[in-house]
Amino acid sequence: MNTENFEYYENYMRRALYLAEKGEGKVNPNPLVGAVIVKNDEIVGEGYHEYFGGHHAEVNALKMAGDNAKGTDVYVTLEPCSHYGKTPPCAEALVKAGVKKVIIAMKDPNKLVAGRGISILESNGIEVVTGVLEKEAKKLNEVFIKYITTKKPYIVLKTAMTLDGKISTVTGKSKWISGEKSREYVHNLRNKYMGIMVGIGTIIADDPLLTTRLKNKKGRNPVAIIVDSALNIPLSSNILNTNHERKIIVACSEKYDKEKKSFLEEKGIKVIVTPSDKCKVNLHYLVNELGKEGIDSILLEGGSTLNFSALKECVVDKVISFIAPKIFGGINAKTPVGGEGVKEVNEAVELKDISYRKIDEDLCIEGYIK
Amino acid sequence: MNTENFEYYENYMRRALYLAEKGEGKVNPNPLVGAVIVKNDEIVGEGYHEYFGGHHAEVNALKMAGDNAKGTDVYVTLEPCSHYGKTPPCAEALVKAGVKKVIIAMKDPNKLVAGRGISILESNGIEVVTGVLEKEAKKLNEVFIKYITTKKPYIVLKTAMTLDGKISTVTGKSKWISGEKSREYVHNLRNKYMGIMVGIGTIIADDPLLTTRLKNKKGRNPVAIIVDSALNIPLSSNILNTNHERKIIVACSEKYDKEKKSFLEEKGIKVIVTPSDKCKVNLHYLVNELGKEGIDSILLEGGSTLNFSALKECVVDKVISFIAPKIFGGINAKTPVGGEGVKEVNEAVELKDISYRKIDEDLCIEGYIK
Repeated sequence: MNTENFEYYENYMRRALYLAEKGEGKVNPNPLVGAVIVKNDEIVGEGYHEYFGGHHAEVNALKMAGDNAKGTDVYVTLEPCSHYGKTPPCAEALVKAGVKKVIIAMKDPNKLVAGRGISILESNGIEVVTGVLEKEAKKLNEVFIKYITTKKPYIVLKTAMTLDGKISTVTGKSKWISGEKSREYVHNLRNKYMGIMVGIGTIIADDPLLTTRLKNKKGRNPVAIIVDSALNIPLSSNILNTNHERKIIVACSEKYDKEKKSFLEEKGIKVIVTPSDKCKVNLHYLVNELGKEGIDSILLEGGSTLNFSALKECVVDKVISFIAPKIFGGINAKTPVGGEGVKEVNEAVELKDISYRKIDEDLCIEGYIK
Repeated sequence: MNTENFEYYENYMRRALYLAEKGEGKVNPNPLVGAVIVKNDEIVGEGYHEYFGGHHAEVNALKMAGDNAKGTDVYVTLEPCSHYGKTPPCAEALVKAGVKKVIIAMKDPNKLVAGRGISILESNGIEVVTGVLEKEAKKLNEVFIKYITTKKPYIVLKTAMTLDGKISTVTGKSKWISGEKSREYVHNLRNKYMGIMVGIGTIIADDPLLTTRLKNKKGRNPVAIIVDSALNIPLSSNILNTNHERKIIVACSEKYDKEKKSFLEEKGIKVIVTPSDKCKVNLHYLVNELGKEGIDSILLEGGSTLNFSALKECVVDKVISFIAPKIFGGINAKTPVGGEGVKEVNEAVELKDISYRKIDEDLCIEGYIK
């Protein structure tokens, strides 16, 4: 494979990745997949996995191409599936359509089936190229890759602070630290990730709705996950009393209030009791349970005590931090990560692959836990 | 003036700005100035203001050009001076050399003399163009502009914190939060600014030398300014007991220890007693006094209590913040700005003209106080 060809492939693969992303917030816990069908340097079909339970990207693209699919090059961001699930295997659909070549960004991350789709294609005389924009495809599906390989949700810690590291003033005021555009972006994250997790302190202090409020499109409210060891959640909390179509999960330790549990369950709220260590919610147990519930990703929005526990327990995968160009000061003002903290510098939680960009006046830093 | 000409001018002016910057750390409290002399699209002379008391940039450039200076275009980053100071006026030197045109980045910020240099040139038939890369020139001389117009030092607050806003772990460990390259950059700042200011808390906790340690060149140690209301500085402090060629100033309130003051003065340390408000050092009074001492710029390096006081008292001009991609956590870990803090979000100290860049793994954010 020469470089020139790869560059040619990348153009169409970029289009396929662009299409794949359109499924954001709608396909979980499935992967985001896009497909583009090219004949004589012209796109004759394209599609993406639009919603959970809907057709796979390849099927949508083949449908659009119709009879034109014969002899074409097909670009797909993820290895075509080889199994009968909600839909028949895409690899077979491609064979049936008579395509000539399949260009794949990344192999199936599920080791049990990886390579099988490619085998079906190749054993039917279809040329297969892999690894085109692989890095980009892996980033796009970082949630899916973690979930399919571990059955645990991908957890993103989101914080917003001032340039002196404060998430509120000494009197607890925090509306608003970051700008409008940053807050819009956070609502996109709430739409993108399946769950949102907060501690009981945040529920008591801010009484948030934890809903997705997008400007120009309809969003999906994330599953609200409240970490509340003793089931202290006030029954008058906004989150328990608004008629949003969404699932609510409250996680507690074994020292919970039994009457409260029944009351919550009567309200349709799922209560997960975790084996307790010092009356605290066992986060490892919890994320396993959340994975079993089909929750592939969680946006962790604090407070600072829960943030530290999650980092310390190594359940966080990624950090997205907004920094606003203002200074609150205050020796007693809260910071994004509290708890006990580490004692030594070399015990710090370290991040890698840092990227950053300006969102209006704010800075948005993203990094992955090392 | 058409745009094309301006672009042509900018190329040479960029060279002049590049030369000007070479005087960094050596010319204070004079401005950084560079000059380039061009004949038939070729540089025939160039120079910069190299050190305090040395020749001005124009003189150095004219010296290099010699007889070639006649009929040339001269690029200079700051309006040529019109006064007899340590050197004769540069405007007259340019007239004498018979140059044809003078291109100037910015006018003299000192309102008492602004335009006088230009008048001398124009009244002698020399064409003058102003405003070429003016913004860049003003940024380069932000220290000089403040000092010449207010007689107060330009104060830069420098902080280094983790991504969760900590300047040390809960046990007070901070070596090192930021990476090697960032720390090198800080030593460049210590060389660039005339003074370095810390609070007594930092002296007691870290016992720092506050010297400039550059990798490949000789630096100048900044004047050490210690804010110490009651003169609590331990006589055994490193800063009082090393033989560095540098000035040390200790600022106190009126409630100082008289014996300690005499002892410090015997050691050659200047003690500035400020009219006290609640036994605290009066920062406004102090910066005025430091200005009178000829200190044009100060790097403020904490601790967090002093940082807040300086921000609250509005003596800070610029903030340079290093953010390391690591998380300490800790509800009791220190943050860059402590003190009382503001109560309401809209009382925050706001920054403008934010710029940022990566220094290895760290992020360096710069902004100006609104």
